[in-house]
Amino acid sequence: MNNSTESPFFRTTGTVALKWHGSSLELLDQRLLPTKEHWITFRDASGVAQSIRDMMVRGAPAIGISAAYGVALAARHAGAGSWKADITQAIGELSASRPTAVNLFWALQRMQKVFHECNLPGEAQERLADEAVAIHEEDLAGNLAMADYALEAMRLSSSASHLTPVSVLTHCNTGALATGGYGTALGVIRRLYEQKLLTQVYVDETRPWLQGSRLTAWELMRDDIPVTLNADGAAAAILATGKVSWIIVGADRIAANGDVANKIGTYSLAVLARYHNVGFMVVAPSSTVDMSLKTGTEIPIEERDGTEVQEIRGVPLAPEGVCVFNPVFDVTPANLIDVIVTEKGVVQKPSAKSMQYLFG
Amino acid sequence: MNNSTESPFFRTTGTVALKWHGSSLELLDQRLLPTKEHWITFRDASGVAQSIRDMMVRGAPAIGISAAYGVALAARHAGAGSWKADITQAIGELSASRPTAVNLFWALQRMQKVFHECNLPGEAQERLADEAVAIHEEDLAGNLAMADYALEAMRLSSSASHLTPVSVLTHCNTGALATGGYGTALGVIRRLYEQKLLTQVYVDETRPWLQGSRLTAWELMRDDIPVTLNADGAAAAILATGKVSWIIVGADRIAANGDVANKIGTYSLAVLARYHNVGFMVVAPSSTVDMSLKTGTEIPIEERDGTEVQEIRGVPLAPEGVCVFNPVFDVTPANLIDVIVTEKGVVQKPSAKSMQYLFG
Repeated sequence: MNNSTESPFFRTTGTVALKWHGSSLELLDQRLLPTKEHWITFRDASGVAQSIRDMMVRGAPAIGISAAYGVALAARHAGAGSWKADITQAIGELSASRPTAVNLFWALQRMQKVFHECNLPGEAQERLADEAVAIHEEDLAGNLAMADYALEAMRLSSSASHLTPVSVLTHCNTGALATGGYGTALGVIRRLYEQKLLTQVYVDETRPWLQGSRLTAWELMRDDIPVTLNADGAAAAILATGKVSWIIVGADRIAANGDVANKIGTYSLAVLARYHNVGFMVVAPSSTVDMSLKTGTEIPIEERDGTEVQEIRGVPLAPEGVCVFNPVFDVTPANLIDVIVTEKGVVQKPSAKSMQYLFG
Repeated sequence: MNNSTESPFFRTTGTVALKWHGSSLELLDQRLLPTKEHWITFRDASGVAQSIRDMMVRGAPAIGISAAYGVALAARHAGAGSWKADITQAIGELSASRPTAVNLFWALQRMQKVFHECNLPGEAQERLADEAVAIHEEDLAGNLAMADYALEAMRLSSSASHLTPVSVLTHCNTGALATGGYGTALGVIRRLYEQKLLTQVYVDETRPWLQGSRLTAWELMRDDIPVTLNADGAAAAILATGKVSWIIVGADRIAANGDVANKIGTYSLAVLARYHNVGFMVVAPSSTVDMSLKTGTEIPIEERDGTEVQEIRGVPLAPEGVCVFNPVFDVTPANLIDVIVTEKGVVQKPSAKSMQYLFG
């Protein structure tokens, strides 16, 4: 598997943000999107660690996969006498690249486990490359499974025996760019499109980081999926038209009672969805579920620097020194969510009880 | 009055966007805010017309007042033999500067009426300057009256005999920069501050034009009013904290049943206010009320060019050619509004009946 130039999976899913070539990893520099599509080839772990640190690659699953390939590169280019030390050092360096990324540690732990089972450098080279590809393919397979589950949940929630084409609205970027390919919430939207069940995707620009306009709009246009971009404040007016049937978003952390932390602006959409009688769906891998957190109030909400709101790409938008409230995430209470979709299955009307049933 | 360097009113209201000096009009170039505070002096109507056309001055009341002063300048500098032709030409030029601005035509009609009563150039010079100052002072007086009414309405809606300090959230710019001074919704916030009844103003940045971050935050900081700026998508998270008691916004058009058209994003706030049990107040001059429109569905909603969402100050934020939905306004149904405040009085729980009572 590690000698193939590309896994067969990757040719079928449209846009990707990373390409494994057996002896090198190519990453799309997402900082330059949407104006430039620039790929950079990495042949060592240090370069991959740097690319994660610099946010050239972003999105928790994509970060984890890139780090795994980083370890595979370290094994490939390790010295014959120093291969153990070289790989250990690479894992350490990759692990330090984004200290809060849960998927990064999860992926590196898997790589470490395989590494400890290897007795020869050639074995490490082969098995670590295989493990990285497996992590990548499992992520992609999980996304494809979530899309299946999601469409079935949409069909069940409609009174009809089969789905008719719908328009949906999404927030942030949960697509191929943020994952091993296909996407979580955006993967569901891809599946709707593939099955000719998609009329239009409305995309919130997603201030302050503009993941919607910079990444999601770019990714959808590239794959010919019909997309309309809107300011975040226009979502309510769009819902009022009655055109949108579902709001579909990702998640950063899901508590044991089904409360969901996701990109700032998600909670607003959930309130608007309920008011307009529009379905609200959360799509995320089961690794996002944290059963140790009783409710969403226990999820720590990171606040980032005010400059993200005060300026865009160095252009000042607000008075110097203005006080800014800039939370990265908000918490949507479970009672506003119609369905949570993971690769393990679906939780309808999430609650402590229904979450326990699937994830307990 | 026209020989005074400044009306006494104007010294008492903090920030202003225009200053009348009897023989010249100074305008703050709002296009350069918040990075530069640059004033330009105009001595003729053509320059004022150009400044309106170029959006150096913005906000419907501020545009109307500037145009009135433009006519006064034309009268002052008119030729002895050609004064009638000169003033007529100036009114025509000013009238063409922003074809959709209702306040502009209303102000110019008042100036035209006075002009037609004048028989001598000296008389025109004096009376037109007086009329422009009157238009300016009436706007300001209206704003001050609205602030009185609003605080009384807030007191009535609380069960207490007097108000205690509150935090509020606002959207767009409805302040001194948009009016003859003080402001409409932002005037109410100023009054709360003056009476030590204001803890904090949260300001939506107000994409796509960023009136909140560029203008409102600047204006509030200048007048030492405690302001916190947030991305539009963070408003819901702020309301969820329970810190905000009122959302206070302006209006561009109010229908006979109390439906309100205002800057895109307002409707979203109204839904969020209801969900969080937060008061929702609309503050606007009675000239905003259009009793010929039965409901908000009859209000035409202007859509502007997608470039407002696709880029900021020339910096591209979205893929080239992406489809954009960019409505300037949205319509908030009357049933989500707790109170509409005008200089003529207050409409609690607006409906066709209660609106008819005050504006019929």
